[in-house]
Amino acid sequence: MSVACCRIITVGDELLNGIRVDTNTAWLAEQLSGLGIGVDRAVSVGDDETAIRAAVEDTLDGADIVILSGGLGPTQDDRTKQALAGLFRVGMKRQPEVEEAVRLFFSARGREATQVNLDQALVPEGFEWHANPLGTAPGMLKRHGDVLLFSLPGVPDEMKALYEGWVAPLLAEERGGQLVYERRWYRTTGIGESDLFDRIGGLEDMAPEVSLAYLPAPEGVALYLRGRGSDPEEIGSRLDEAEARIRDAAGSCLYACENLEIAEHIARLLLERGETLAAAESCTGGQIAHSLTNVPGASRWFMRGWVTYSNEAKEEELGVPVSVIMEHGAVSEPVACAMAEGARKNAGTDWAVAVTGIAGPTGGTEEKPVGLTFVACAGQGETVVRQYHLGEGGRMRNKTRSMAVALDLLRRMLEDIDPHEGGWEVHR
Amino acid sequence: MSVACCRIITVGDELLNGIRVDTNTAWLAEQLSGLGIGVDRAVSVGDDETAIRAAVEDTLDGADIVILSGGLGPTQDDRTKQALAGLFRVGMKRQPEVEEAVRLFFSARGREATQVNLDQALVPEGFEWHANPLGTAPGMLKRHGDVLLFSLPGVPDEMKALYEGWVAPLLAEERGGQLVYERRWYRTTGIGESDLFDRIGGLEDMAPEVSLAYLPAPEGVALYLRGRGSDPEEIGSRLDEAEARIRDAAGSCLYACENLEIAEHIARLLLERGETLAAAESCTGGQIAHSLTNVPGASRWFMRGWVTYSNEAKEEELGVPVSVIMEHGAVSEPVACAMAEGARKNAGTDWAVAVTGIAGPTGGTEEKPVGLTFVACAGQGETVVRQYHLGEGGRMRNKTRSMAVALDLLRRMLEDIDPHEGGWEVHR
Repeated sequence: MSVACCRIITVGDELLNGIRVDTNTAWLAEQLSGLGIGVDRAVSVGDDETAIRAAVEDTLDGADIVILSGGLGPTQDDRTKQALAGLFRVGMKRQPEVEEAVRLFFSARGREATQVNLDQALVPEGFEWHANPLGTAPGMLKRHGDVLLFSLPGVPDEMKALYEGWVAPLLAEERGGQLVYERRWYRTTGIGESDLFDRIGGLEDMAPEVSLAYLPAPEGVALYLRGRGSDPEEIGSRLDEAEARIRDAAGSCLYACENLEIAEHIARLLLERGETLAAAESCTGGQIAHSLTNVPGASRWFMRGWVTYSNEAKEEELGVPVSVIMEHGAVSEPVACAMAEGARKNAGTDWAVAVTGIAGPTGGTEEKPVGLTFVACAGQGETVVRQYHLGEGGRMRNKTRSMAVALDLLRRMLEDIDPHEGGWEVHR
Repeated sequence: MSVACCRIITVGDELLNGIRVDTNTAWLAEQLSGLGIGVDRAVSVGDDETAIRAAVEDTLDGADIVILSGGLGPTQDDRTKQALAGLFRVGMKRQPEVEEAVRLFFSARGREATQVNLDQALVPEGFEWHANPLGTAPGMLKRHGDVLLFSLPGVPDEMKALYEGWVAPLLAEERGGQLVYERRWYRTTGIGESDLFDRIGGLEDMAPEVSLAYLPAPEGVALYLRGRGSDPEEIGSRLDEAEARIRDAAGSCLYACENLEIAEHIARLLLERGETLAAAESCTGGQIAHSLTNVPGASRWFMRGWVTYSNEAKEEELGVPVSVIMEHGAVSEPVACAMAEGARKNAGTDWAVAVTGIAGPTGGTEEKPVGLTFVACAGQGETVVRQYHLGEGGRMRNKTRSMAVALDLLRRMLEDIDPHEGGWEVHR
């Protein structure tokens, strides 16, 4: 049951000076994982012939497949081809078909190819090549013993086109794992990574066929479950077993058995019920509405939102009585309730969520510190409010966390789960 | 003039199976470049003790500094500490101060630390450590000969906090390069990358001492200018020369000569003028308010926001006449104007911005296609409206672009620049 092992090398100064985030590695890794091919190392090096050569030399040993991306542009600072020719001690050979393709590429754009462009037709001897449908640098392949060494352009669209049109079919045919893979996602909110881990563990007893990854984010922890083996049915039943443990551990904090934002989950629930929603935000400042309206078709169920930063706005827009604000402060349970109820009434919706809190970095007091947040959800005949202490993790994090607990409260009420269950850092 | 050479190792299965894009490497590389420290290789490995150990061993040779990030979580699949202890053949030592910090971290959140959490206090012998202000895994440092080997958590916020509060000052003191670097940022909006490039070029005539990077995003193109040399004054005058070219090319589309979001820039302008703002959003769905309220202290100048998705909301909250909606449609110039003016009036602010458009993927017609957006800005005595065709780049991109053009319109009015200048894909 050997699994093909792949290594990825990305080339470019821009990846090592902070100008660009390397997204090619993650994209390639995900694609390869779909073919049952694992990546055990990824390396980034600059546009330097010696560094590229050393990286290829290092990775060739022990790999079945190596994929390089980058350093194939027409300009002087692209050195991958030279590094590969040097490593394998071969010269360059001009490929007339590539040269013709480059000419066509430019003439189709009303321009003439320069000598620099035409030099894209130089391919190291002994390398196979494949035309680039979106650019001028061809993909290249060197068969080194049993190792397949691909060199692709670094421009993401060109790299993807060559991978999909050439590398993937070739790998599927020559190196497709005999192993079958199944992947499942679980999304939780209101439970911390360490709590989840205490209850589920790493599934070491099911390894290596089953593996579980914990992916924490301010909105909640996502769980990524993978199974591999030669028998799809057996994989399925092992994953079912793992899933039972996850469900048991996460309880009502598990909101979806797929990779779904909580806003998308809420969208589905509201559509199923034919109900509508409004939002009244203070400290989240529009982030709840933004997140909800990222869901395509949100206008069918999201009707209206307010960002009531000032006390006057809370009073005038949502009818929060001044006396309540004066007595309890703008960041308080009664104000959160009044905001939600006012929003529901004014918008004429079935549901309304509201948040008031202190996102920081300023505005905290000893009694009401940064991170204190009240979230409320008003439905027919019932308004539920909860208090959270989200800590001093920074303004953006507190906004995101406040959004998550507000949406989770709504989700619980929509699903008829005890709305007081779950939740991070809860004080009441 | 030797420059300290750093290598970055990021650890995590999620980086090698396509689940997460590694953003830590680019962030660290940028920070290091500000200290005059170059990165010559970046490696990602999975949560595997042998692989981590091999990666550290490989990179130690020839590096002055190695920074690891990731694999320090409390769970079983985090193996960095074990790998380091194994590599240096040392045991673990419980650090009482770290244990105390972990206890405090949990008790501040109303919970008790479990044994798994407390084990974060185990630090390999001979390693220095530094408390994590945002989490429980401390930063660690091993001095191996002349090499500094840092191990930081992988959670970006925690990694950044430890880098900024501990690693950077330590490196600046011990390893600052003899070459001087100066970096400048320029932020533009409303002008495309290729237009900018046609006018400025790559500054090849000033290379290698001066380099310019183009960083396009839906909100606009950022320019990152770097100069290096041994004489700070000479670097400064060369960068001034480059800056003159940038200013000339970008014109009024250049809104800041520093790395500033447009919301932050608007915040400064409003604070200087002592004026206030409200926002009325349809297709941006709260993203404008969210972006504005990400700026700390926004409550001093951002008063109120509305997300008026439905026609009723536009009428009831902002006083947009039904007749205008009926005659021109909700996505129209008169509705955008009426939204801005209604928001300004109801909020009692000096300024209001409004957006109405079709973010897609559905809702477009031949006459009003997806990507059509009207933005309006109402000030004292004047309301300006502009129409954009933002194309079919997807819902989130259209929301972000709509936000950018709305905020740019406001910025131009605040700065008394012709509000009809600049702007992508403008039709009128």
